[in-house]
Amino acid sequence: MTQLIKAREGIITQEMIAAAKKENVEPELIRQGLVDGTLVVPANVNHKSLEPCAIGKGTKTKVNANIGTSTDFPDPEAELEKLRQVVDAGADAVMDLSTGPNITDTRRRMLGASPLPVGTVPVYQATAEANVRYGAMMKLTADDLFDVVEEQCKDGVDFITVHCGITRQVIDVLKKRRRVADIVSRGGAFLTGWMLHHDRENPLYERYDELLEIAARYDVTLSLGDGLRPGCLADATDGPQIQELLVLGELVERAWEKGVQVMVEGPGHVPLDQVRSNVDLQKSLCKGAPFYVLGPLVTDVAPGYDHITSAIGGALAAWAGADFLCYVTPAEHLGLPDAKDVRDGIMASRIAAHAADIAKGLPGAAEWDLSMAKARKALDWEKQIELSIDPGHAAAVRKKKNPEHREECSMCGEFCAMKVVAEALGTEAECC
Amino acid sequence: MTQLIKAREGIITQEMIAAAKKENVEPELIRQGLVDGTLVVPANVNHKSLEPCAIGKGTKTKVNANIGTSTDFPDPEAELEKLRQVVDAGADAVMDLSTGPNITDTRRRMLGASPLPVGTVPVYQATAEANVRYGAMMKLTADDLFDVVEEQCKDGVDFITVHCGITRQVIDVLKKRRRVADIVSRGGAFLTGWMLHHDRENPLYERYDELLEIAARYDVTLSLGDGLRPGCLADATDGPQIQELLVLGELVERAWEKGVQVMVEGPGHVPLDQVRSNVDLQKSLCKGAPFYVLGPLVTDVAPGYDHITSAIGGALAAWAGADFLCYVTPAEHLGLPDAKDVRDGIMASRIAAHAADIAKGLPGAAEWDLSMAKARKALDWEKQIELSIDPGHAAAVRKKKNPEHREECSMCGEFCAMKVVAEALGTEAECC
Repeated sequence: MTQLIKAREGIITQEMIAAAKKENVEPELIRQGLVDGTLVVPANVNHKSLEPCAIGKGTKTKVNANIGTSTDFPDPEAELEKLRQVVDAGADAVMDLSTGPNITDTRRRMLGASPLPVGTVPVYQATAEANVRYGAMMKLTADDLFDVVEEQCKDGVDFITVHCGITRQVIDVLKKRRRVADIVSRGGAFLTGWMLHHDRENPLYERYDELLEIAARYDVTLSLGDGLRPGCLADATDGPQIQELLVLGELVERAWEKGVQVMVEGPGHVPLDQVRSNVDLQKSLCKGAPFYVLGPLVTDVAPGYDHITSAIGGALAAWAGADFLCYVTPAEHLGLPDAKDVRDGIMASRIAAHAADIAKGLPGAAEWDLSMAKARKALDWEKQIELSIDPGHAAAVRKKKNPEHREECSMCGEFCAMKVVAEALGTEAECC
Repeated sequence: MTQLIKAREGIITQEMIAAAKKENVEPELIRQGLVDGTLVVPANVNHKSLEPCAIGKGTKTKVNANIGTSTDFPDPEAELEKLRQVVDAGADAVMDLSTGPNITDTRRRMLGASPLPVGTVPVYQATAEANVRYGAMMKLTADDLFDVVEEQCKDGVDFITVHCGITRQVIDVLKKRRRVADIVSRGGAFLTGWMLHHDRENPLYERYDELLEIAARYDVTLSLGDGLRPGCLADATDGPQIQELLVLGELVERAWEKGVQVMVEGPGHVPLDQVRSNVDLQKSLCKGAPFYVLGPLVTDVAPGYDHITSAIGGALAAWAGADFLCYVTPAEHLGLPDAKDVRDGIMASRIAAHAADIAKGLPGAAEWDLSMAKARKALDWEKQIELSIDPGHAAAVRKKKNPEHREECSMCGEFCAMKVVAEALGTEAECC
């Protein structure tokens, strides 16, 4: 029985209680959100080290970090180190997107070590293995793909990205409507290529009921991938993207019918002024299912700084109602992120998520900022560091820039506004 | 005669032509914007190395970088090195906020070297010198302050921040309405302290006509400082802030009457959902005068990452109509920024500015992104690097992460979506 089915039966599970505790809300709010479909608690029955969390309406905006090997960087140890970094940096979930050798081994070690929900994109492993087995990824069979899905779900993966919405009809729309960047989703690109090559329907769509059975068996949350997400601003909110979203809306309801938890993935590259309408559209077409966005990046021109372009879009998206932000690292569009990139990406997304939670009026969100403001006013550095989103980093910067450890910071020194005003207004005491 | 007076007389100056060229617009648009007061061209008659630009409606969102010595870091050479960094990183203006020794010398060297408009906050020099001369900054006289203003204007400073809006009446409101962080503007804090200490009106308000005469003489643009800008989210858009803004609105019209160019400064720390209303309010109360915002920072809890909290707020503010973004560096709230912090701060603000220009539909803005998208689709790395907002940085990251210099990037390697789809759809050629 999935968390969703249990919720419908009125059962409050240990997972719901654990997720509620993280939010400081009543478990009933989590249960009701599950019933409504506006919230998921990804928790594979076989993921033993998991500390569950909720993703969706009424809870904190969550942040996911993607890690995983590639052919150029195949070392699983490096990815396990990144996982430690991910947990330490305060991400809420992690996806293992390995495409290097030893994908199964890397994933199992990651699942064993991760207290965070772990997601995967099964088609990555399927294509990588087909490449080895047949010498060409296009020779993958639909059965091969479903074998990988089953293997990964059995291993304990909490959520899987499945690009079920790329149907032949969606590809027809793609062919008719010219795009600048065509398809930038790796899974979407492969499936489109496979469908055209074999002149066949998408197996993840055609055999969706079978997929739902596997997901239900292990309580894997489906994350319906947006294979046609825009890869540049010029392609944002276009025909192919919305055509696929329409299909995803139908698939959400079919998942719910089978008691399977489901969320929907979204763009991508989106200009500032289209971010809110993208969220509104997803919420409407997908009946309030949680929305998991990649970025969105609000400009295409900043490789090396795409954690920032994404933080801007992510803050706006989450404020508009997106529930789950997939981080983008400074390495995006240039290469595989290292541990430092991972940390920078997570911090940028956490800032966006928190700024949005304040704007949405999520209970408790603004209190954190109020505590920081009071510590700052009181020039209480210990407290300021402790309350920082990244205490270790804040402490290191402070130390480096203030060798004498003076009371004020080295920017203003003796001209510190806080001190001048406190003396003039006699307000210092009230904030200490 | 100031640029404003010349514009009113129908004269198109060399400065207007130079500014128009940077925007790729007709000089008449610049002249009309000056007449309307919706745009400024800061260009002191004595700043010989200046390459003028326009700040305001119908032009690109501009970015300012603050540099300058402090008592802990008094070396002018380090600041001149930062100035080179500022120019190289593509900022549009620079402010010399020196408070260390040798302020006059530092400023003169900076003015000699800067093609960008240079701004200052005269009260910083005035207080630092009073500290030396009288042993206490509160012993500063109004005449001392005006002597510094005159000296700086004569030296060639293009715009000065003057906190003319902190009147006794505004301070009365401040005293009545409890704030968490009181005053965080250094200039605002000092003036408030001075006024309370001496039980006198703000000399910059009381002798505003004299200030306008000096500004008119050298064509210095006034940047009306927001001394009571909120220093934390809890203080945003509160009584004291808006009371001061009301005064600034009156002072804008008085500057225009005397032919003095003027812009208005704004917050600060502002939650996402209050950013747009802050811009709307300034535009309304200040009759469309250019709006120069610091950040805004959308959360208080991220010291070490405040270039990101500011990029989020800055993008939103500029999209809503703010014209000029003052950068915030990763060192904000912790210490004086070094050259790396300066660069990171500028890039974050430039990203915010450009994302907003796209959203506002500024002619030409989205074309840059379109060119990048085409280069990315074509896997044309040389072009991608060239089109990057920071080409040197993008090139360095690419090189570091892709030792073999392969065609794809090391994130996807042979599973590159661009390649898979181009093969399947046969679209590669059209984008190359």
